[in-house]
Amino acid sequence: MTDNNTSKNQPPRISVGLYRSQEDPDTVSSSDDARQFGHDFIILPIVSSSYKRFISGQNEQLDNTKNSKVIEEWRKNHVFFRDDLVIKNTDLVDYVVGQVSDWLDFDSPDHNVQINSEIALRQQISWACHLGISAVLISFPSTNSIMNYARSLNSILGSLTYTHVWCKIPLVLETEIMTDESRESSVTWERWNKFRVLCEHNSKLSIALEISAQLPDDKDLERWFAEPIKAIILPTSIFLTNAKGYPVLSKKHQTFVRKMIKYKPNFVISCNADSDLHENNGLAAYQEYIRYLNRTIPELTQIEQFANGYQDFLQSPLQPLMDNLESSTYEIFERDNTKYIYYEKAIYHALLDRVPPESDETTVIMVVGAGRGPLVTRSLSAAEKANRRVRIYALEKNPNAFVSLQNMKTEVWGDAVTLAFSDMRLWKPPEKADLLISELLGSFGDNELSPECLDGAQKFLKPDGVSIPASYSTFISPISSTKLYNEVAAHKDFVHFETPYVVMFQSASELTESQEIWRFEHPNKSFEVDDNEMPINNYHNTRYSKVTFDIKQSGMLHGIAGYFESILYKDISISIRPTSHTKDMFSWFPIFFPIKTPIYLPSKTKLEIHFWRLSASQKVWYEWCVETSYSSGVDTISLGSPSIHNVSGRSSWIGLLS
Amino acid sequence: MTDNNTSKNQPPRISVGLYRSQEDPDTVSSSDDARQFGHDFIILPIVSSSYKRFISGQNEQLDNTKNSKVIEEWRKNHVFFRDDLVIKNTDLVDYVVGQVSDWLDFDSPDHNVQINSEIALRQQISWACHLGISAVLISFPSTNSIMNYARSLNSILGSLTYTHVWCKIPLVLETEIMTDESRESSVTWERWNKFRVLCEHNSKLSIALEISAQLPDDKDLERWFAEPIKAIILPTSIFLTNAKGYPVLSKKHQTFVRKMIKYKPNFVISCNADSDLHENNGLAAYQEYIRYLNRTIPELTQIEQFANGYQDFLQSPLQPLMDNLESSTYEIFERDNTKYIYYEKAIYHALLDRVPPESDETTVIMVVGAGRGPLVTRSLSAAEKANRRVRIYALEKNPNAFVSLQNMKTEVWGDAVTLAFSDMRLWKPPEKADLLISELLGSFGDNELSPECLDGAQKFLKPDGVSIPASYSTFISPISSTKLYNEVAAHKDFVHFETPYVVMFQSASELTESQEIWRFEHPNKSFEVDDNEMPINNYHNTRYSKVTFDIKQSGMLHGIAGYFESILYKDISISIRPTSHTKDMFSWFPIFFPIKTPIYLPSKTKLEIHFWRLSASQKVWYEWCVETSYSSGVDTISLGSPSIHNVSGRSSWIGLLS
Repeated sequence: MTDNNTSKNQPPRISVGLYRSQEDPDTVSSSDDARQFGHDFIILPIVSSSYKRFISGQNEQLDNTKNSKVIEEWRKNHVFFRDDLVIKNTDLVDYVVGQVSDWLDFDSPDHNVQINSEIALRQQISWACHLGISAVLISFPSTNSIMNYARSLNSILGSLTYTHVWCKIPLVLETEIMTDESRESSVTWERWNKFRVLCEHNSKLSIALEISAQLPDDKDLERWFAEPIKAIILPTSIFLTNAKGYPVLSKKHQTFVRKMIKYKPNFVISCNADSDLHENNGLAAYQEYIRYLNRTIPELTQIEQFANGYQDFLQSPLQPLMDNLESSTYEIFERDNTKYIYYEKAIYHALLDRVPPESDETTVIMVVGAGRGPLVTRSLSAAEKANRRVRIYALEKNPNAFVSLQNMKTEVWGDAVTLAFSDMRLWKPPEKADLLISELLGSFGDNELSPECLDGAQKFLKPDGVSIPASYSTFISPISSTKLYNEVAAHKDFVHFETPYVVMFQSASELTESQEIWRFEHPNKSFEVDDNEMPINNYHNTRYSKVTFDIKQSGMLHGIAGYFESILYKDISISIRPTSHTKDMFSWFPIFFPIKTPIYLPSKTKLEIHFWRLSASQKVWYEWCVETSYSSGVDTISLGSPSIHNVSGRSSWIGLLS
Repeated sequence: MTDNNTSKNQPPRISVGLYRSQEDPDTVSSSDDARQFGHDFIILPIVSSSYKRFISGQNEQLDNTKNSKVIEEWRKNHVFFRDDLVIKNTDLVDYVVGQVSDWLDFDSPDHNVQINSEIALRQQISWACHLGISAVLISFPSTNSIMNYARSLNSILGSLTYTHVWCKIPLVLETEIMTDESRESSVTWERWNKFRVLCEHNSKLSIALEISAQLPDDKDLERWFAEPIKAIILPTSIFLTNAKGYPVLSKKHQTFVRKMIKYKPNFVISCNADSDLHENNGLAAYQEYIRYLNRTIPELTQIEQFANGYQDFLQSPLQPLMDNLESSTYEIFERDNTKYIYYEKAIYHALLDRVPPESDETTVIMVVGAGRGPLVTRSLSAAEKANRRVRIYALEKNPNAFVSLQNMKTEVWGDAVTLAFSDMRLWKPPEKADLLISELLGSFGDNELSPECLDGAQKFLKPDGVSIPASYSTFISPISSTKLYNEVAAHKDFVHFETPYVVMFQSASELTESQEIWRFEHPNKSFEVDDNEMPINNYHNTRYSKVTFDIKQSGMLHGIAGYFESILYKDISISIRPTSHTKDMFSWFPIFFPIKTPIYLPSKTKLEIHFWRLSASQKVWYEWCVETSYSSGVDTISLGSPSIHNVSGRSSWIGLLS
């Protein structure tokens, strides 16, 4: 947890570079210019146009036979001649992004042009790496024939260590602006997606997204947020002119850029010719404007503040039964005032309903898994507001938290509260309770074993006793996120793909709205008990559910997001589902279940997700499986091969033993 | 290489078992009966019908509350009661295949029936394993809802060591017989395929194929040959009665059974009731008939004899440049008389064309890569038949083979032949040749580096000199083979999926006919040479090709088969392509390029295979990539995520250095 108070009012500086599409510029004077106009870096070609002679095989200064031999020698040795280079040495290395020649043609019908282009690509990137340039910019494949380009690039990506490759992708292809069809406007994403898949999702390959004057609709924009965008290219031509003659962006562009700033990309002002510039302030005005947008982004919400630094960071879910939580973990969760306000409200209404106003009857409350006591405090507060007598038991099995409870009893609560040190599945209560209060929910609802714990604790309840929460439902949705996929894949093993993670989504997009897969209710009267009033086995807490999603817009499926909604008491609920998220409540990030192989989903795909909650004597685990099919109206065909993840809990599980 | 002469006239004994669908049979008397009627094993249920009470939760002897508790206790402990078992002990273990109850229902709408079925499956298979039974028979899922069945079974398959699971699959579903649509008759294959994919292609799961009275068409039958069939179930009801009253199979069934015998499955005679039996000889007649079919299968062809024992066995292709072949390898290949007959014919015609009948001009022949000399012998023989004078040079770089050449020169050839010990790329010949003869082809044509070797050797040729072979073309086709996929997957690594194998296909089927991807011609005048008359680089031997296949019948793609056709001289060719295979030539098995993830291909799929032959200074390698798309007429959508195999030759390559 980092303290973000200092940064709240001063957004971090953003990086803005310059990109002038000139052939054969002078490195030193161009860089000086860019610096003078306030840019943090400049994009310059790696080689000069003279180098073209190797690609086409045409050289006016040599006869054909001689030239052919020169090319073959170059193919063999590919040494640079100093004169062919724009970036000649390491002098400006920290200030420069190298541009690979955009006249290479990897999928030319001429096999020799293919070969020469591949050699040139390798040679240029290799030179940039040698110099220690941090990124090179490559062109987006101009047609759908990208196979040989992808293969060539992929064979290079594997050897990169420091240098990254930015693929320049136009947000909208020129030709697309002409048509209304939404499918057309997704051509660039589809092509990028295929390119990236062919490059084995290599994390060294990212996007430099070139923004167009016309923005596609929000759905189309949305999916770029799930992609690895390292740079946003803003041509000067898309800027409008404000009343004072300064360049500004349209409202829609402003929103997009401000949203993008969260992802901390590099911005690039691109300028074809000086005639493209706006009246006032020349080249400097654009970067100043982008920095102005950065300075004036709205303040972070409470959840954003809390989540800052945790975006897209994969955390293992808590195992509160097996592990004892640390004090700092309690500390963090106790800060979530919103959650406790809802709990207090639920307890308050339950107390009102339980005992008539005039009665002096005492309501027995048991807080199970009391931790350091926040729900005890809220129970006391609810009782005071409701003007009802209560007797409270606080039960906790973590010996360290139990010390905090003793401190609270001594210093604050006094006789109203009785402490008990025990696992709630084993405790023998001195009396039965009216209200059983717990906060055992995980991001997926039941994933911290709330059902099993409350099954054990419900024997404390009077026959008409009430559990808060009364129920919780689990929701899932299909998710696209290159970032999260790469994080999981980086482990290079099988186990991490069969493990759920708690994660605050940022570079991720929901492919469609979440749906409920199952629900738990408490108290649960449906199971048989043994002599100790414990369930004979745990099969009643297993679940199997299949939900079907209609995919309208094509996308790449990387995993499944999980959320919960919980009814605490009657109409008092909390939720972490995106569409019903309890405002300002930050205790739970969503949960993410990866899938082993990303699945391309064309539009009109039907996606079936199968989910299981399974149990053996000592553990609980989830299995999941994704099936996709496409319906043309006439035929329905299955896409891809479904694979059941985490069979028998082989990779991840939650321990039932404390 | 095993010597198969002994087995040629006596086909190996086949195993024929008995399967009587009885509830609660007596193990001992049933087995005695089966043995008496000549069966090698019997299929018996593992548990008796009394066991059903645990699945449905219905028990007439107990009231509901009591029963519910009994079930919960069973769920917890699942111990067998002796009375519930048909197979009670290990007495008949070597004679019995256990049948799992066919009234389990894993995808019942009742979650409790799902749970109980899963427990029962685990319990029954676990008991069979405990006893050491070699196989258990399970039912085929009766509907398309197979997800929970597959998950349950898969979780068990992982723990099996000795025992195999046979899934009983009807070749044709009852309902399908009613319809004409070819799509319907593939329902069982489609369902099996999904089931097997969900079970992670586990090699412990195989098929017991139940043959129907109506056989589907050949295309439908064909694809079962690519599947792991461990048993063929023949119901007595599908047998016809011959003139003498004995049970026999229809011609079509006979052909199918005889073809299946090659795969060495277990046969099973299944019989519902004694009334199903044919007149004569009772139960014994069926197994006798199957054994008769086995005894009378046609003799093996020359290629089959040669391949015997090598079917579906993955071999690494030879690396004749890097490694020196052993004498036994030469021995095997020299046995292929057919191949040398074609070579001799080619040399004969080349000699006739080279020198007019009356001339006493001498034709200079260079045999490059002469090995132990078979082509030298054939050249001498061709010269004699053509009545032409020849001077022969035999060039070899393998020091061990060179001793054999010296032996041959001393003992047989004499002065007509000059020997030279050298790599053909480095040798300085004393004169130029008319004919350059080589046998450097691999299964994929160029995969043993014939192009590179002959590029180096062609400087020996006179300007109008001739190379035998004159050219060779490479062909590929998409292949389905669970067996080969599992062989590759068994290595549990990445490298083996990016490596080609030489293999005699048996449990494999071509999804459609092969197509040419590229060709090499010799001599090759298209490249620039250095001062040593060697090519400056090897880029002229790189290739990239894309071929498109139309898939008419759905199937599972496991890899790519490779073949070659070669023009030795004018109209004299040899081929290992299935459609044009040179009769009785056995020197080359096909080559198999696996793919990492099997791809399900619905019918109407367009399959694009991209293939590269690439080269660096010291090696040559192949890369391959499969792209699939489906066209509904309106939309074309891509299926799955294409993946380029063997990027930069990271997993497999052929060394250019000797």
